[in-house]
Amino acid sequence: MNYSREDIVTLENMFSRFYEIGMTDMGGVTRLGYTEAEDRMHEIFVQIASELGLASYADEVGNTFVANDASKSDYYLMGSHLDSVVNGGRYDGVAGIVAGLLVLKWAKENGLNIPLRLAAWRCEESSNFGRSTIGSSLVTKTLGANEAMGLRSKDGRYFVDIFKERGYSLDPPRIHNVKQYLELHIEQGKVLEEYGIRVGIVTDIAAPRRFRIHLHGQPEHSGATPMNMRTDGLCAAAELILEIERIGKDESYRNSVATVGVISSEPNVINVVPGSVTIGVDLRGTVRESLDIMEKRMREAVNYLSTKRSIPCFIEETSSENPVKLDEEMQKKLRDCAEWLRISHKIMPSGAGHDAMCFARITKAAMIFIPCAKGVSHNKNEFTSLESILDGARIMYEYYRREGETYDPDSERKTY
Amino acid sequence: MNYSREDIVTLENMFSRFYEIGMTDMGGVTRLGYTEAEDRMHEIFVQIASELGLASYADEVGNTFVANDASKSDYYLMGSHLDSVVNGGRYDGVAGIVAGLLVLKWAKENGLNIPLRLAAWRCEESSNFGRSTIGSSLVTKTLGANEAMGLRSKDGRYFVDIFKERGYSLDPPRIHNVKQYLELHIEQGKVLEEYGIRVGIVTDIAAPRRFRIHLHGQPEHSGATPMNMRTDGLCAAAELILEIERIGKDESYRNSVATVGVISSEPNVINVVPGSVTIGVDLRGTVRESLDIMEKRMREAVNYLSTKRSIPCFIEETSSENPVKLDEEMQKKLRDCAEWLRISHKIMPSGAGHDAMCFARITKAAMIFIPCAKGVSHNKNEFTSLESILDGARIMYEYYRREGETYDPDSERKTY
Repeated sequence: MNYSREDIVTLENMFSRFYEIGMTDMGGVTRLGYTEAEDRMHEIFVQIASELGLASYADEVGNTFVANDASKSDYYLMGSHLDSVVNGGRYDGVAGIVAGLLVLKWAKENGLNIPLRLAAWRCEESSNFGRSTIGSSLVTKTLGANEAMGLRSKDGRYFVDIFKERGYSLDPPRIHNVKQYLELHIEQGKVLEEYGIRVGIVTDIAAPRRFRIHLHGQPEHSGATPMNMRTDGLCAAAELILEIERIGKDESYRNSVATVGVISSEPNVINVVPGSVTIGVDLRGTVRESLDIMEKRMREAVNYLSTKRSIPCFIEETSSENPVKLDEEMQKKLRDCAEWLRISHKIMPSGAGHDAMCFARITKAAMIFIPCAKGVSHNKNEFTSLESILDGARIMYEYYRREGETYDPDSERKTY
Repeated sequence: MNYSREDIVTLENMFSRFYEIGMTDMGGVTRLGYTEAEDRMHEIFVQIASELGLASYADEVGNTFVANDASKSDYYLMGSHLDSVVNGGRYDGVAGIVAGLLVLKWAKENGLNIPLRLAAWRCEESSNFGRSTIGSSLVTKTLGANEAMGLRSKDGRYFVDIFKERGYSLDPPRIHNVKQYLELHIEQGKVLEEYGIRVGIVTDIAAPRRFRIHLHGQPEHSGATPMNMRTDGLCAAAELILEIERIGKDESYRNSVATVGVISSEPNVINVVPGSVTIGVDLRGTVRESLDIMEKRMREAVNYLSTKRSIPCFIEETSSENPVKLDEEMQKKLRDCAEWLRISHKIMPSGAGHDAMCFARITKAAMIFIPCAKGVSHNKNEFTSLESILDGARIMYEYYRREGETYDPDSERKTY
């Protein structure tokens, strides 16, 4: 299809306004949640909105909203985020924001008669506080003040102190009047690219169950300790890593994955047999039974290894979330829109977590994925074409255009 | 047997003089080679020697010698070191020094008529410059000026600059007149303890062949990348780690060992499939053929894995030394001494490297091992009893006493 040159230029201009913020020597960007870099992203967001003639406001926790309508009726909410991981890419989060701004621009130009807002959620990445989707969790009340206040930033400051300084509230009222939620995000995987498909319509968001497993081997001189007198923590970890890979493969028919993403070994020097080794395990799936089986098999493997290698092992559960189902009616409508626009699409689960998870718990929610080059995300090589962002924006706009056809502001207002 | 209370007290006093130097908050000691902490160790060494009425001198690279005889004849040389690893223990190196001082004390008290010296070698540990036995290597010319000058300290300074500042020479004359070399060291393994044997007489010093192996996987979002689309660097490394363990076990009948002591994984975060993983491999053995077989099998395993998992792998050899045979006649005599003293002993290889390696290349050399608790070394829990140090010292003294019986200073002097 032909992309409108004007739309591409609009996207390019918006995208370039964010480009330099948080830039690092490594070529990526660092825009940690609730830091100055993220503040500047939100300022640019407000500036662009104002240039488009749109009103904006911030909520009690620093999330920024742009609205085409200030009425009290239920509104259609789009959302994404403007923070990044350390040395992250420029598309994760930002793609959803610029797409949303374009949708609002079109809505304004075409006089779309539905109340539409776009939120930039604070601190979606877990990089600063070890907890993801903080801004959206606070306002959907899926993260409570008690839990939030104890979080600590990468540089050691308590969340509660940061919030005090900024004049934010740890216990904001629950966001209300959200009729439904829609989020566009880069896939952060390579499934769409490998299939050659232009957008994904997301069915479920997988829940990560995360564990830290400690294996307490004996650090001993590598030259002076015969093979049969060793309790090598790294060899034990290696067996476990391979078993966890096997578990993930066995459950992959249900879209589950199992990953050991983190490893640390003590003392980690060339002439010492590894002693204490810790690995971080991430089990994800959209099917609870599959998650249960993976966790059970992992625990059995740890016990087996502990006995076999005479190595004390401890499992620490660091998070356990539930998979989230997205709204089927919204999915169906989004597929219809994509079809009508002749944009190839695929229904697929999301392995990564997103702000949409929080909204799926309080209202109808849906997500659109667009491909990113080679599936690369969270680093400077992250790339999504402006055409892909436009694909997503067009589906979103078409979706809202159809909603507008049946939207009756009076009947909406009646409910309040 | 009964240990002389006086000798134990002497050892205890000497040992306590070194105790606080380089002490860290963690309870261990940090006395890196060619730093102030090591200098202070050498100062104490000189002080103790002077209190015992013994002369001392330093050579061109900072090694300190204590002598009972300043003549130009060939002398019997004992040696050990006074530096430590970071947060190391108090016995590694120091045990050999205090044992040597006790031997010199006895020699003086009993009028032993052989020329005897004790050297404290500089920088035996590789912790500061990534290169071990620097002081002894420089004076035995097994480390050349060209190679030495480019070494860099932990805090980034060039070896050549440090030497200039200290007024040392990178190209000292080769040490001469050494008749033979004897070193007492803690075992740094638990073989003696497990066998319940009091000393080890060392037959060979194993040569480490060291490699860095890089496995270049693809870092991808752990939630968004299905199991069958991954190239997980850590899973590949895990297979390799287990294969290297297997290789070590297969060659253990020849006293070889194979260890992966170091691992680093990028980006090492919980929600990313590991990308680039590097492991450090240490293959050791006293039998060259066994080392060759281990290296060959390791290389085959890397190739196999690289193909099987479609993961680019690179092997970098970081050091390749030859096993060193110690002098058989000296071993035989030391065993006779131990037997005569009713000290149980065992002939055994040394898996760890020692200054004795350098001397075995230029003269006759031997080593005595004493047990250390649980084989622990290179950390604060390192422990050797004073009784064990005394066991070693008594064998050394008996050895020199017997040498004295046949020693003819005039015939010795004739050769020069």
